[in-house]
Amino acid sequence: MKDKIKVGWVGFGRRGRYTIEEGYGHMEDVEIVALCDNYEPILAEAKELLDEIGHKNCKFTTEYQDLLDDPEIDAIIIMTPWLDRVEKAIRAMRAGKYVGIEVGSAYDIQECHDLVRAYEETGIPCMMLENCCYGRREMMAYNMSEQGLFGEIVHCEGAYGHYLLNGELFRDKEVGRHYRLHEYALRNCDQYATHELGPISKVLKLNRGNKMLTLSSMGSKGRGIKQYIVDNLGADSPYAQTHYYQSDMVSTNIKCAGGETIHLCLDTTLPRGFYSRNFNVRGTRGNMFEDANFMNFPGMDQEDKVKGNMDKFMERFDHPLHTEYRKLGEKEGHEGIDWLVARAFVEAVKNGTNTPIDVYDTALWLSIGPLTEASIAMGGAPVPVPDFTKGKWTNREPIVECKYCLDKVCVDTSVKIY
Amino acid sequence: MKDKIKVGWVGFGRRGRYTIEEGYGHMEDVEIVALCDNYEPILAEAKELLDEIGHKNCKFTTEYQDLLDDPEIDAIIIMTPWLDRVEKAIRAMRAGKYVGIEVGSAYDIQECHDLVRAYEETGIPCMMLENCCYGRREMMAYNMSEQGLFGEIVHCEGAYGHYLLNGELFRDKEVGRHYRLHEYALRNCDQYATHELGPISKVLKLNRGNKMLTLSSMGSKGRGIKQYIVDNLGADSPYAQTHYYQSDMVSTNIKCAGGETIHLCLDTTLPRGFYSRNFNVRGTRGNMFEDANFMNFPGMDQEDKVKGNMDKFMERFDHPLHTEYRKLGEKEGHEGIDWLVARAFVEAVKNGTNTPIDVYDTALWLSIGPLTEASIAMGGAPVPVPDFTKGKWTNREPIVECKYCLDKVCVDTSVKIY
Repeated sequence: MKDKIKVGWVGFGRRGRYTIEEGYGHMEDVEIVALCDNYEPILAEAKELLDEIGHKNCKFTTEYQDLLDDPEIDAIIIMTPWLDRVEKAIRAMRAGKYVGIEVGSAYDIQECHDLVRAYEETGIPCMMLENCCYGRREMMAYNMSEQGLFGEIVHCEGAYGHYLLNGELFRDKEVGRHYRLHEYALRNCDQYATHELGPISKVLKLNRGNKMLTLSSMGSKGRGIKQYIVDNLGADSPYAQTHYYQSDMVSTNIKCAGGETIHLCLDTTLPRGFYSRNFNVRGTRGNMFEDANFMNFPGMDQEDKVKGNMDKFMERFDHPLHTEYRKLGEKEGHEGIDWLVARAFVEAVKNGTNTPIDVYDTALWLSIGPLTEASIAMGGAPVPVPDFTKGKWTNREPIVECKYCLDKVCVDTSVKIY
Repeated sequence: MKDKIKVGWVGFGRRGRYTIEEGYGHMEDVEIVALCDNYEPILAEAKELLDEIGHKNCKFTTEYQDLLDDPEIDAIIIMTPWLDRVEKAIRAMRAGKYVGIEVGSAYDIQECHDLVRAYEETGIPCMMLENCCYGRREMMAYNMSEQGLFGEIVHCEGAYGHYLLNGELFRDKEVGRHYRLHEYALRNCDQYATHELGPISKVLKLNRGNKMLTLSSMGSKGRGIKQYIVDNLGADSPYAQTHYYQSDMVSTNIKCAGGETIHLCLDTTLPRGFYSRNFNVRGTRGNMFEDANFMNFPGMDQEDKVKGNMDKFMERFDHPLHTEYRKLGEKEGHEGIDWLVARAFVEAVKNGTNTPIDVYDTALWLSIGPLTEASIAMGGAPVPVPDFTKGKWTNREPIVECKYCLDKVCVDTSVKIY
């Protein structure tokens, strides 16, 4: 058990900066001792921030290998673009360092197998930092599912419903240097399935008594990006000359070994007007519908059976972790999810335990990109989903029986957290 | 042009009775001259109703052929269970009588081809009486799509989200004689796709410039029916001994020739708590989300961009047909949809024109049952969707340029209604 961990950080883009500024940078038990970004000009900004928030001994480099060679470093946090994240993770594990890896997609299934192999050969955990697993709504659903309130869960749905063009892929009507636009030009798949799939995996016990069997995916035509460019940058913009292969809508059906189905939707390039992960849980005893903001449990004493009633359930079934989090006061802007996922990772490193989102979860979630890509390209043909556990899903137990700490306040150890 | 039409009616179950009582039975230009039901005891009830509402000359029979042999009859309305509806429709067309057929599913694709052939050989129209095509929300969407307000439409979604166990398949905790339960025991498919698919087909111009290419469907395990039976009829009930093959959730992706995708969901045997057709339309310029009760058009002068704003759009973009309907005063309980679909059929018969939902639409929508059944059985493998028009979709125009009448009040003829 370590009192304080030393972190090597790679990637100081928008997301990397945010998570230091709002999270890791302010944790008393975390010291960022080295930061790497291959875009040298940004390192000065990084130094300014880290100096300001008390990480004055942090070293800065453009060479990732410098982090791996530093024997002081306990864990690497990877916040770089998607392209070589998995490779970076594997190198870190082989250097004996815990890995926290930002959400995203693999490019090929073999990357996922390689990641698992690195874990199995080194014993070093790797955790996808899927913040939405720590969403208040999602954790409430998990809490209620553990209590059996949904009955037998039969179907889950989720979406990444987030219009990215105005503000993400393009900023202030200028083209950002966001790498995702390049991905959207070249690939057509569900590139960003993990926000909804992470929590669904936890509810459906994937890799722990259940697994995905097959997946079938269809993609619509892609019109939104070009429309946005023509409307905002003009038809003569060089960006208007690119063809973007990405479908505006990717709709994916997944079948699980337990007979459950999952429906996922990537929905990022058509105007929407509201953000949604459309997290729906359907069981024989009850249900949750995010977009309708509605929950219904016929057998439960439940007064309010109208749309908009989810807050009442929050009062009653909030996950203890969120209740604890609220006692601490707001820690960051995303309703605690970034803080909580960071704490989960940090606690595992401190305790030398496995991470609550482990390498098998990480590999599975990363694989959705290439699997949907193949299925879409084959006109929706179902493709097998690899069992990255190689059978161990049949008897794996939950890792963490809540030895979770929030700023050193332990919650009830009888509560399961994944 | 006929002032009054004579109708032969077959099927006096719950739905048959309702549509006479709330609709056709009260139309001045409709005379129900014969009614058939093969369950003889119910004919006395039928006679009582028809006498009461002024159809005193109606004849009653258990023999469908009697209706076809009656030269007075202009049109047959088929409200019988699904099993031989298509056969009944074909026999009616071959007897020279317009056919209105209640919503449902075919059992095999060949039935759909046979129906089309009957039309092509006789010239007699056949209309699926899909009332949801006349839903106020759905017609508003059609109206707005015709005005180009969605921009290019890329994706549509719909569901039949209706918990059928308490009140439909089983009534008052007793087992009804509803034939659908039998279907749920033997088949596994989207047996009831037309409520959402009808309006989507109209928005996407299927059979008129667009068509479905392929369909892929996955089904969850089925647990809801058995759970309901055990909870309400007891584990010893003979119904508890049956295995019900129907999935609780059927999730279907469809790809269209125009590049659009459609997502459909059958959702009838798990508790929900609210009815929904989850009618969603997604375009490059705007969108509609039923469950979120939200519409958003970035380029439009639109004050209210919060969930729940759909009513404001209703005030502004109500389809003229619904505006007219409201002037007449409420005609029946389903917000006018049963009345309007009935009027559409009756007007076509009176005018000797084709029906706004025609035989190609009917065949296509009926085919979803067997197509999803095959795809589910093949693990979600995509199956081709037949082109029932045999290529005519490439240059077919909308049939009806609004020569619609509502209780003899014609609406603006410049407005397209399908």
